[in-house]
Amino acid sequence: MPKYVYMFSEGNKNMKELLGGKGANLAEMTRIGLPVPRGFTVTTEACTSYYENREKLGENIEREIIASLKNLESITGKMFGDPKNPLLVSVRSGARASMPGMMDTVLNLGLNDEVAESFAKETNNERFVYDSYRRFIQMYADVVKGYPKSSFERYLDEYKEKKGVHFDTDLDASDMKTITKDFKKIYFEIAQEEFPINPQEQLLEAVRAVFRSWNNERAIYYRRMNDIPSSWGTAVNVQEMVYGNLGENSGTGVAFTRNPATGEKKLYGEYLMNAQGEDVVAGIRTPSPISKLETDMPDVYKEFETLANKLENHYKDMQDMEFTIENGKLFMLQTRNGKRTASAAIKIAVDLVSEGKVTKEEALLRVDPKQLDSLLHPMFNEASLKNGKVIATGLAASPGAAAGAIYFTAKEATEANQRGEKVILVRLETSPEDIEGMNHSEGILTLRGGMTSHAAVVARGMGTCCVSGCGELTINEEEKWLKTKEGQIFHEKDEISLDGSTGKVYEGKLEKEEASISGDFETFMAWADEARTLKVRANADNPRDALQAKKFGAEGIGLCRTEHMFFDKERIFNFRKMIMADTEEDRVKALEAILPYQRNDFIELYRAMAPNPVVIRFLDPPLHEFLPHKKEEIKELAEALSKSEEALEERIASLKEFNPMMGHRGCRLAITYPEIAKMQTRAVIEAVIEVKKEGLEITPEIMIPLVGSTKEFAFVKNIVTSTADELIKESGMALSYEVGTMIEVPRAALIADKIAKEADFFSFGTNDLTQMTYGFSRDDAGKFLNDYYTKQIFEQDPFARLDQEGVGQLVEMAAKKGRSVNPNISLGVCGEHGGDPSSIEFCYRVGLDYVSCSPFRVPIARLAAAQAAIKNGGQL
Amino acid sequence: MPKYVYMFSEGNKNMKELLGGKGANLAEMTRIGLPVPRGFTVTTEACTSYYENREKLGENIEREIIASLKNLESITGKMFGDPKNPLLVSVRSGARASMPGMMDTVLNLGLNDEVAESFAKETNNERFVYDSYRRFIQMYADVVKGYPKSSFERYLDEYKEKKGVHFDTDLDASDMKTITKDFKKIYFEIAQEEFPINPQEQLLEAVRAVFRSWNNERAIYYRRMNDIPSSWGTAVNVQEMVYGNLGENSGTGVAFTRNPATGEKKLYGEYLMNAQGEDVVAGIRTPSPISKLETDMPDVYKEFETLANKLENHYKDMQDMEFTIENGKLFMLQTRNGKRTASAAIKIAVDLVSEGKVTKEEALLRVDPKQLDSLLHPMFNEASLKNGKVIATGLAASPGAAAGAIYFTAKEATEANQRGEKVILVRLETSPEDIEGMNHSEGILTLRGGMTSHAAVVARGMGTCCVSGCGELTINEEEKWLKTKEGQIFHEKDEISLDGSTGKVYEGKLEKEEASISGDFETFMAWADEARTLKVRANADNPRDALQAKKFGAEGIGLCRTEHMFFDKERIFNFRKMIMADTEEDRVKALEAILPYQRNDFIELYRAMAPNPVVIRFLDPPLHEFLPHKKEEIKELAEALSKSEEALEERIASLKEFNPMMGHRGCRLAITYPEIAKMQTRAVIEAVIEVKKEGLEITPEIMIPLVGSTKEFAFVKNIVTSTADELIKESGMALSYEVGTMIEVPRAALIADKIAKEADFFSFGTNDLTQMTYGFSRDDAGKFLNDYYTKQIFEQDPFARLDQEGVGQLVEMAAKKGRSVNPNISLGVCGEHGGDPSSIEFCYRVGLDYVSCSPFRVPIARLAAAQAAIKNGGQL
Repeated sequence: MPKYVYMFSEGNKNMKELLGGKGANLAEMTRIGLPVPRGFTVTTEACTSYYENREKLGENIEREIIASLKNLESITGKMFGDPKNPLLVSVRSGARASMPGMMDTVLNLGLNDEVAESFAKETNNERFVYDSYRRFIQMYADVVKGYPKSSFERYLDEYKEKKGVHFDTDLDASDMKTITKDFKKIYFEIAQEEFPINPQEQLLEAVRAVFRSWNNERAIYYRRMNDIPSSWGTAVNVQEMVYGNLGENSGTGVAFTRNPATGEKKLYGEYLMNAQGEDVVAGIRTPSPISKLETDMPDVYKEFETLANKLENHYKDMQDMEFTIENGKLFMLQTRNGKRTASAAIKIAVDLVSEGKVTKEEALLRVDPKQLDSLLHPMFNEASLKNGKVIATGLAASPGAAAGAIYFTAKEATEANQRGEKVILVRLETSPEDIEGMNHSEGILTLRGGMTSHAAVVARGMGTCCVSGCGELTINEEEKWLKTKEGQIFHEKDEISLDGSTGKVYEGKLEKEEASISGDFETFMAWADEARTLKVRANADNPRDALQAKKFGAEGIGLCRTEHMFFDKERIFNFRKMIMADTEEDRVKALEAILPYQRNDFIELYRAMAPNPVVIRFLDPPLHEFLPHKKEEIKELAEALSKSEEALEERIASLKEFNPMMGHRGCRLAITYPEIAKMQTRAVIEAVIEVKKEGLEITPEIMIPLVGSTKEFAFVKNIVTSTADELIKESGMALSYEVGTMIEVPRAALIADKIAKEADFFSFGTNDLTQMTYGFSRDDAGKFLNDYYTKQIFEQDPFARLDQEGVGQLVEMAAKKGRSVNPNISLGVCGEHGGDPSSIEFCYRVGLDYVSCSPFRVPIARLAAAQAAIKNGGQL
Repeated sequence: MPKYVYMFSEGNKNMKELLGGKGANLAEMTRIGLPVPRGFTVTTEACTSYYENREKLGENIEREIIASLKNLESITGKMFGDPKNPLLVSVRSGARASMPGMMDTVLNLGLNDEVAESFAKETNNERFVYDSYRRFIQMYADVVKGYPKSSFERYLDEYKEKKGVHFDTDLDASDMKTITKDFKKIYFEIAQEEFPINPQEQLLEAVRAVFRSWNNERAIYYRRMNDIPSSWGTAVNVQEMVYGNLGENSGTGVAFTRNPATGEKKLYGEYLMNAQGEDVVAGIRTPSPISKLETDMPDVYKEFETLANKLENHYKDMQDMEFTIENGKLFMLQTRNGKRTASAAIKIAVDLVSEGKVTKEEALLRVDPKQLDSLLHPMFNEASLKNGKVIATGLAASPGAAAGAIYFTAKEATEANQRGEKVILVRLETSPEDIEGMNHSEGILTLRGGMTSHAAVVARGMGTCCVSGCGELTINEEEKWLKTKEGQIFHEKDEISLDGSTGKVYEGKLEKEEASISGDFETFMAWADEARTLKVRANADNPRDALQAKKFGAEGIGLCRTEHMFFDKERIFNFRKMIMADTEEDRVKALEAILPYQRNDFIELYRAMAPNPVVIRFLDPPLHEFLPHKKEEIKELAEALSKSEEALEERIASLKEFNPMMGHRGCRLAITYPEIAKMQTRAVIEAVIEVKKEGLEITPEIMIPLVGSTKEFAFVKNIVTSTADELIKESGMALSYEVGTMIEVPRAALIADKIAKEADFFSFGTNDLTQMTYGFSRDDAGKFLNDYYTKQIFEQDPFARLDQEGVGQLVEMAAKKGRSVNPNISLGVCGEHGGDPSSIEFCYRVGLDYVSCSPFRVPIARLAAAQAAIKNGGQL
């Protein structure tokens, strides 16, 4: 049988899994002799057992808690429920990973009427005791019983108003007594039972409540956002109370060993005198900066400074500490590695290395790669955010800051931008036809669609700020207005601002500052590059993105989606002509008109990226995505093609599919229309010939999408090689190219050993692979995935984080099978997962050669790749 | 280096893979001393090499052919191109499996002007020689050069007309000479070169042509229909000519050792005097029945009879033979196991066992399970088919014969049938809403959709005759008429007939006869049941289908799709109410109204099937399938629900999905709306309680669809068990039930070892598993799969025959993983593949417990399961 409860003196900092972060650190501080109030920790395994046991504490656990309580009583010399010398405790959650504010805390537990009365006499401090008691009642009601805090708070506000005072500290002992009495009344009214007077019952109830709080809604959401498995559970820390509310010689505060916003090496924090912990956070009184403590209580300050240094040196990282001063005596209540902004994280990491406190490898592991994102996009400055008026909040779909005039169609957005305006495109939702307008916009705002909607994916790819799914707004695209929940209306050309990192929409134009890549950042990324073995490429469809990617350190293009090139106004017409062609001859003619454009696209891409490799994926989406759907557009196109509208509508209808995701797309198009693949091959190879004349060397990697059988691949490869070889022969040059395939259909992974015989490379298209392995349509899953999160069936969005258990099994299988027949085959990932740190670690572990992600994620991927290597024993 | 050419004397009947069926049997007949003209076989490996070598015969192969030719010359004492004593040969294809008429043949090869002239003198039979020569020119032009036969045939018809004769036999020697000369002219006109005079060149060209014919369109189609891999290739048989056209003492014919239509044990066949092989088939003259030969040439007949018996005894099966009589001497040109009708196949198999010629195991292997299909449906009688007027031909989607009045809507079809009419439902395509009308129809005719369209799948499931995808017809559903290609118009109530086994549509009502399961059939199926170990269940959603399935030998229901029960008029309203409900309370209320119906469905199903198991699949399709889409229906429903039309339309729009196949369906519905699963569990269990009172014992198997993760399954299972256990406890009865899952999402197969810990059974939903493993939408794949067949990327429809390489890998993996943690888990298949013989053999090999298929396929599955067991060493 496992041991479910540990005294602080029994643990240490390496026992986080069992004791939680807070418990392990309390034990560690105890162990190294810091002034820590005594206590014990109920383990995370007790939490797991609680849930396995249909939300019941087993007898064993209860028995161990009671035994540890006795132990605590004998160490402290105080007794639970003893009116003369009562033991009061705090009960706090503490999971393996810090989840600040997500779970619950109860202070002053152990009080009842009898204890309070006698304790007040003993301490000769009635005000303090009843202040503690009323706090306890309110917290117990809230945390253990789930009764609304507001009933208590409203009463307190009214009481203070009646008394004409502003702060709790202005209330005297008799006020506190009255308030306590009335709080118990309020409790009785809601609960229809008396406030429990048995401290032991109070304690067990509080432990259960903390375990329950592990599965409250905000905790579940926080875990999902932060990759924390629900199976971990939380520990509970039961600790002797020390009192910051004993009077003017007492207080409580929080502080960091360095500035968490800038990384500056200087104690940073704040404190409140005559207060308990929650007062600092709640903002009832304004706390003082920690530096003021130096003048107020110089000895305490000096001691705290020493302890803080000791802790930072001990943990070798910036510490976030809580402390209480009880009658002039300092107690440490918590220490943990502090949260910090991205730039602070980098400065601290670099500083710690130069201070000799950590190795470069350790420093690299200290920064969360995802955090880098905020360093790569222009940001609004602090002041403008503070003063800005939020008019709506949507999903933070693509980070960055955008401010400009709103336009409701892609066309008008484009024109406005071409006139020199900064533009925000506002749409119900975007479609591939909007691509040009999106390209011309500072930011994109959509009312529908989630984090993986068209707008979100394309915007992230472009590094353009996007707020998606902002359902609280109303839009009328025809009449060109946007209405807020409050009824405020914005018309075309009105200005708004979008914060893509928070999802907030502001009225007017907020001021921005360009992201600057500081010297520390550069140093840090250079270490990352030294440490990693996994290459990082970027997904880029045009020279602008390619150059951006290169600036961010991309070592090639892992995915150039050629279809994005077809939406350009000049080409879409010929492309539509191709689709509408009745004969192969007409189709070829239309394709020939597109060839020069496509060739030029590639020339520019090569110029941007050479001599690094460029993976070019052949046409992938179903043809109907390229056809117009609006009456007038159809009419226009029909006239241009000299076809009847009916004929056009018929063709459009005939291309409609029930499940386009699994329809006539990918290599299936090249099989029906080999001439498309032929034209694309010509463009790829002729472009190489062209840039070679300029002295550039490049080996294009032609990628066939959606392959599911060897013969599909062989068929298209044959078109490619026969076309390419002839062109190369004609050119008289020595050129090389590769032909490979996406692995994005489950069957391709299953038969990878057969495909690999023919393929030069595999690129895992984990977006589609995830769709088909789960049978989840990405465009539809939003409707039910929320139920999956709230019912705890899923903890993660499988489209954001690679599902290693299922989809990953296919990736690993395909990698193994592929290498078994073709040891030199190059393996990469080009789905959204290529920019996700945990997925990147997986890619490293299964031995892929590179990941490819959107340009703005390249630095993230570089760091994640370095961390993967270091975690698996890699060194600089 | 392999040996590419075998003399007939070097082979035997076991060398079919190498020599093809015809070659192996010619060798065998030679070996056992039958009068076979001498010759040699170019192997199937030479064909494979020809294709690997970019359609070139390698030098080795050519050298071996020439060497064998020399050998043949020395054996026969005749010389290729020798004017005096020329060797003439036939060149015929011969694949491993018989593909009658699919590939090409050249007779009389070796003739040229010089040879003909001198050969005519030698034989003193000018007519014979030039008759042979003109035949050769035409066949060579057609087979080797691909020139149209019609040019030659037209000339011949005109010549005969001019001469005023009807038959070729009425032409004399000088006619034949003229015709030969003119044929060479026609050849020159088309070819722009002289007819080749070098016999060796003629031979090599002919061999190449036969190899090429392996990949002609009709051969590819035939292989697809008959499961023949394209990798097998064909052999080529080069054989000394014998002449049936030497005069009235010569002839040629084909015969079977038993009647291929009835199985009667009596020589059956026909012959023509003074003719070459192709004349018998071409129908230029009417051949005589083989019995007439007994009077015409009694000695030859007796010899043939003896040889026929010898061959049947030797091959232990009914033989299909070709023979030629040259100047009164009998030659055997071919023998093979004869094609036969299903009833003949069964009679012959049973007879051969009672004659002591084969074992029961051998007899079971002799009948193609697919053939049984035609024995299970009512059929049109021969006479009516012969006299019927075919007005169109579509796909033979579901076998059977239907004759009745046409109706264009499901509603009118239902009403007409309720008035007592026999009805044929004609639709552009059917949708789930048509289910009731389909149920009331004799037959279903659709203009769109393939073999796996809604109409086809549902009709096969019901055992209802269906012709689908009949695109040559035009329909106007509003005005209620149907138009043939020729412009003939059929209105509502006009009568037509459908033959679901041929896809033909006839004018008027053809006469039918009921299928009778003869005594032999029963005997035969009893043997099959003894031999097999794999159980056979049926997919059935209602008592009618369940009873039909039981009659055909089903051992339980493997799939009851509960959603089909919701389309009934009385329930759909409440179901729609459920979908439209705004609160859980309203949803529960609507579901409670459905509960009694659903419970009653199960009671009737149990009554039909007990004590055999019944697998009940919980609600699977997306909800929008249940909502109306037509304006007036929406209005009607809105009124009935006291909702506005707008609200209804909004809800309908909100349920629309981009890829419904991968959308909100299956267990995802139960996760969002647990109350649905709860209601269905109640119906399942309360029905068991009800029938138990009647003394019936049944263990329902509740199946959760579309599971992809363990938690999905656990969530729904928890709803099921908590609901069921309470009901069972209340009932005070001892009941059992099982809870299992479909394995139809690739991820489920990948994590089957985890799911199996919780699941009592797996049922492989190979339809959806195929869709997602390939990424093929079944509803859309029809658009491009044809290109896949013609470009030889696919040889088989993966929805009809289980893709063992890819999808099968997942099935096998899941079976292994499942059993590894839960050795008692029951494993079955319930997709369309459950009725496909080759897929059934796969299921047997990977160790599944049962297959489940539509009722009309149950006997097919029973036989296929027996064959699988026997092929793998099983005995009766």
